[in-house]
Amino acid sequence: MTSNSDNLLRLFNTRDGDDMLERADLKKRYEKEEYDQLKDELTAKLVKLQQDCIREKFPVIITVDGWSASGKGTSISKLVKDLDPRSFMVHSINAPTEDELRYPLMKRYWERVGQYGTFTIFGKSWYHEALQIITNAFADARDSQAAHPVLRKHGDYVITGNEELSSLYAESAHMFERQLIDDGYLLVKCFFHISKKEQLRRLEALHAEKSTAWRVTKADFQQNRNYDLFVGAVDQLLELTNTADAPWNIIAAENRRVRRIEFLKVLVKEIESGLERHCKRKGNPLSIPADFPLPRSRHRLVEMPKVEDARHDLTIDLDEYRTKLKAEQDRLAELQGELYRRSIPMMLVYEGWDAAGKGGNIKRVASALDARDYRVVPSAAPTKVEKEHPFLWRYWVNLPKTGHIAIYDRSWYGRVMVERVEGFCTDDDWRRAFEEINDFEWEMYRTGTILLKFWIDVSQDEQLARFEARKNDPDKAWKLTDEDWRNRDKYPQYCQAINDMLCMTSTDFAPWHIVESDDKRYARIKALEIINAAIKKRLEIE
Amino acid sequence: MTSNSDNLLRLFNTRDGDDMLERADLKKRYEKEEYDQLKDELTAKLVKLQQDCIREKFPVIITVDGWSASGKGTSISKLVKDLDPRSFMVHSINAPTEDELRYPLMKRYWERVGQYGTFTIFGKSWYHEALQIITNAFADARDSQAAHPVLRKHGDYVITGNEELSSLYAESAHMFERQLIDDGYLLVKCFFHISKKEQLRRLEALHAEKSTAWRVTKADFQQNRNYDLFVGAVDQLLELTNTADAPWNIIAAENRRVRRIEFLKVLVKEIESGLERHCKRKGNPLSIPADFPLPRSRHRLVEMPKVEDARHDLTIDLDEYRTKLKAEQDRLAELQGELYRRSIPMMLVYEGWDAAGKGGNIKRVASALDARDYRVVPSAAPTKVEKEHPFLWRYWVNLPKTGHIAIYDRSWYGRVMVERVEGFCTDDDWRRAFEEINDFEWEMYRTGTILLKFWIDVSQDEQLARFEARKNDPDKAWKLTDEDWRNRDKYPQYCQAINDMLCMTSTDFAPWHIVESDDKRYARIKALEIINAAIKKRLEIE
Repeated sequence: MTSNSDNLLRLFNTRDGDDMLERADLKKRYEKEEYDQLKDELTAKLVKLQQDCIREKFPVIITVDGWSASGKGTSISKLVKDLDPRSFMVHSINAPTEDELRYPLMKRYWERVGQYGTFTIFGKSWYHEALQIITNAFADARDSQAAHPVLRKHGDYVITGNEELSSLYAESAHMFERQLIDDGYLLVKCFFHISKKEQLRRLEALHAEKSTAWRVTKADFQQNRNYDLFVGAVDQLLELTNTADAPWNIIAAENRRVRRIEFLKVLVKEIESGLERHCKRKGNPLSIPADFPLPRSRHRLVEMPKVEDARHDLTIDLDEYRTKLKAEQDRLAELQGELYRRSIPMMLVYEGWDAAGKGGNIKRVASALDARDYRVVPSAAPTKVEKEHPFLWRYWVNLPKTGHIAIYDRSWYGRVMVERVEGFCTDDDWRRAFEEINDFEWEMYRTGTILLKFWIDVSQDEQLARFEARKNDPDKAWKLTDEDWRNRDKYPQYCQAINDMLCMTSTDFAPWHIVESDDKRYARIKALEIINAAIKKRLEIE
Repeated sequence: MTSNSDNLLRLFNTRDGDDMLERADLKKRYEKEEYDQLKDELTAKLVKLQQDCIREKFPVIITVDGWSASGKGTSISKLVKDLDPRSFMVHSINAPTEDELRYPLMKRYWERVGQYGTFTIFGKSWYHEALQIITNAFADARDSQAAHPVLRKHGDYVITGNEELSSLYAESAHMFERQLIDDGYLLVKCFFHISKKEQLRRLEALHAEKSTAWRVTKADFQQNRNYDLFVGAVDQLLELTNTADAPWNIIAAENRRVRRIEFLKVLVKEIESGLERHCKRKGNPLSIPADFPLPRSRHRLVEMPKVEDARHDLTIDLDEYRTKLKAEQDRLAELQGELYRRSIPMMLVYEGWDAAGKGGNIKRVASALDARDYRVVPSAAPTKVEKEHPFLWRYWVNLPKTGHIAIYDRSWYGRVMVERVEGFCTDDDWRRAFEEINDFEWEMYRTGTILLKFWIDVSQDEQLARFEARKNDPDKAWKLTDEDWRNRDKYPQYCQAINDMLCMTSTDFAPWHIVESDDKRYARIKALEIINAAIKKRLEIE
C-alpha cells in the first residue's frame, strides 16, 4: 500500500459494527401484485407532491449515487417519466470537463442547483470526486501520484497531499449541504447498494450485449474485483457524511422491483415531511431580538477598527500620485501576465459608501489589465431567477476562471448591508450570512484564488460635497439617485451593519482593507499597492 | 499545394485590384499634440454615446480581428477603461473548448450576444475559424487532412470536404449577422492591419522579453513567414464578408497612435449613425398591409395540407396500441444508445392545439429514454433577459449537445403563432421569423442534428370535450386556464397562422409532421414511428 492510499485509509478505514450499507436488505423481494400496487400508489403520491412543491416554492435536491451497474440511470429515467417536465432537471455528473477544471470544484454543483419549487436530480453526487479518489487509489495502488486532476490543474498552493484533498472534499461538500439546507432546500441523498456477485453478473451481461458493451469500462470491472476493499471505504464515507439534516438513504438495488419501491418510498417520505416543515416555517418565521449576540465564526478573525474611526486626512501630492500610479499600473500589468501564465485566479471585492470613489478606483486597476482576462461584475438588483436561489448562487456562477480576474463592484456583502438595513431579507438570513460568506471565501482561498476586499471609505462631509457636485454637473447627474440621499439618512444603521461586517468577516485568509478615500488619489494608490503586494507574495510562495 | 489548400484557394484566391487591406494607410502618423486632443475628444464622445445606447436600449456588437501582434488586445483594454462597466462585456474568442465542440459552431457566438442597450466586444470574430483554416492550410500544406476539429467532432454527415466547410462558415456567419442586424443590432467589424516587417519586429520584441515570451507561439511566426500568401486570402475573405449593413473597417495598426485614433473614429462614427437610424425606426415602425405577400424562402419547401383538413377519424385498437407502444419504445431505447455512441444530437419540436395531447405524447417518448441524456425544454413566457435578445437566442443557449436529445414543449414557433395572433411582436417581426427559423433549422440540420417537428392536431369538438373533462377533474383542473378558452375563440386567426407556418417552414430538410391526435394513442404511436424511422435512416447513411 502506498502512502497515497495510506492517507485515504487513515480517513476511511475505521469501520465499526453498525455498517451503513448493511441497512439495505439485499434479500428482500416483492410479488408482482404487491409491487404493482405499491408502485402506482407511491407514484401518484409523488406526482401530487411535486405539484405541492411547485405551489409552495419548496426546492428539492435528489442525489443518486451508488455502485456501478446498480441501476442509477434506469431509476432516474423511470422516476422522471411521471413528473411535470417543467419543474425538474436531471444532471449527470461525470469527470469534470476542461472548463470545469478551471473553477473551484464545487462550482459545477452550485451552478446546477435549481430554483425554488423545482426538483434537481443529480446522477451521482458531490461525493463523486471523493469516491473516485478512493477507487483510483485502491484500484491502482502502484501509482502513488494518483491525485485527482482538479487540484493539479487549479494551481492550488494550500493543498499539498491527499489527506488535505480528502478533507477538502468533505468540507466543501459539507458547506454545500449546510448552506442549501439553511436556505430551505431539502436534500435527499440515496446510495444504491448491490452485492459483488450481482454487480459482476450485470457487468458481464452488459458486456456480452453488442448494443450495451460500450457502456461498461475497465474501471467498472476493477471496482468489482476490489469490491471487498471498497465496501469498507464507501461505508466510512457514507457514515462521515451522514448528517442529521441530510442523512443517506441506502437503497437495496439487488432486485429491480425492490429498488424501485424503496427509491419511491424514500422520496415520498422525505419530501412529505420536508414540505410539512417548510410550510410550518413559512407560516411562523423566526423572530430574533436585536441584541441577540451574533454567531461565532469557526474561522480565525482579525481585529478591525470601527468604520467611524477611519482617517479622513490622508492625502497624496499630485506629482507623487502621477509617478506612483504609472509605476503601480505597470507593475500590475506585468504581474497579471504572471497570474495568467500560472493559472491563478483573482477576485477583487469593492464595497464602500456611496460616492466614495469605488468606480474611479476600479477604473485605475482595470485600465492596467488586459480586457480579455478580467471582468467587472456589477451587483445590480437580483433577477427573478437569482431571487429564487441562495444569495451566493449568483456569485458562484460568476467566478473568474484560472488566470482571470473578477472585480466585484459591490458584492455578496449586500446581504449584510443593504439587505439587512432595508429589511430585504429576514434577520435570520443576514445573521447566517456572515459565516456563509466566510465559508464561501475560504473555499475560494484554499482552491487557489487570490481574494482581496476593499472598504472604500469617505467622511460624511466629503460625501455631501460630492453629492452636491454631482447634482450640479449634467454629465454626472445620472450617477446620483434618490436612493443615495436615503442611504445617507440611514448613516447610523449603516455604520452598525458595516462594523458588524468588518468584525465578522475579516478572516485571517481574507481580511478587509480600509481604503481611505477622502482623497481619491490616495485611495487609488493604496488599493493598487495592496493588490500588487498580494500578487507578489503569492507568486513567491509558489 | 495539396487538394485541401486548393479548395481554399479556389474560394479565396481571386484577388482583384481594389484590395480591402490597402485601404489602411500604414504610413500615417500623428503628432503628440494632435493625438492627445483627438483621443480626448473621441473618448468623451464615445462615453456619452454609451449612455445614449443604454437609454435607447440600442445594442452594439464590436469585433476586433486582425493579424497576430497587431494590438487587438491592447486596443480593447484601452477602449473599455473609460466605458461604464455595467453595460459592456468583452469575450475573447479562442480555439473552441471541449464543451463548445459538442454544439453547432455558432452557438458560442450566439450565446455571448449581449442584451439590448449593451456593447458586446469580441476579441477576434466569428471569422476566426475561417481564418484559422486558411492559416492552417497554407502554413502546413503538407498535411492534407488538416480540417478544423469542429466538424470532425460534431459528427456531421452533410459536410464532406473543405469547400463545404468554408461555405459553411461563410453561410453561418452571414446568417448570424443578418439576424442580428434585422433585430436592430449594430455590428462594427474591425480588422487590424500591420505590415509583415512590423509584425516580425513586434513578435521578436515580445519573444525577447522574459515576461511576454509565453504570449508568442510558433503559429505566430508561421503566420509572419507566410504573410505574403495570407494577405491575399485574408483580403478575399474580408471582401466576401463585406456587406452593406456590416462592412469591414480596416484599421491601420502599424502605429500605436494611429491605431487608437482610427479605432475610436470608427466606433464613434458607426455608433452615432446607427443610433440615429435606431431612434428613427423606433419612432416610425413599419406598417405592413395584411394582404402583403409573405417573403419567399431561399430554402426548398415541401407542400403541406391545410390544418383544417387534418383527419379526425384515425384510431388504433387498444391491444394493438399496447403491443406497438412497447415495441417502438424498446426500439427507441436501443436507438438512443446508438445516437449517444455516435455523438449525434436530436431535437424534437412539439407544437399543437391546446389539449391536443402534447404532454402525453412527449411522455411516451421521454419514458423510453435515459433521463441523463435528454431534456424537456418548456417554452414559458420569456424572461426579462430573454426579451432583450433576438427571439431565437433562448433556443441557441438551450441546444442539445452531441449524443443528447432536447424535446421542445412548444418552441421558437411561438413567434409565428401566439406572438403573431396576440400582437406580442410587430408584423415585421413575425413575417421575418419564417426565414430566420428556416435558417436556424438549416444550421442545426447541416451541423449534424436530427430535427423533427410535430404538429399535434385535434378537432374542435374533441378539444371542447377535453376542456370540459379537465374542468370537472380536480386533479387536472390546473392544466386548464382562461387563456385556453380565449385561444379557442380565436380559432380562425390561429388557423391562418398555423397554415402560414406549415406552408412557410416545411423545408425539405425539416418538414412538419401532422400527428392526428383525436385518438391520443394513435398519435403517440405515429410520433414514435416517425422518430424511430428518422434515427434509423440517419444511422444507415453514416
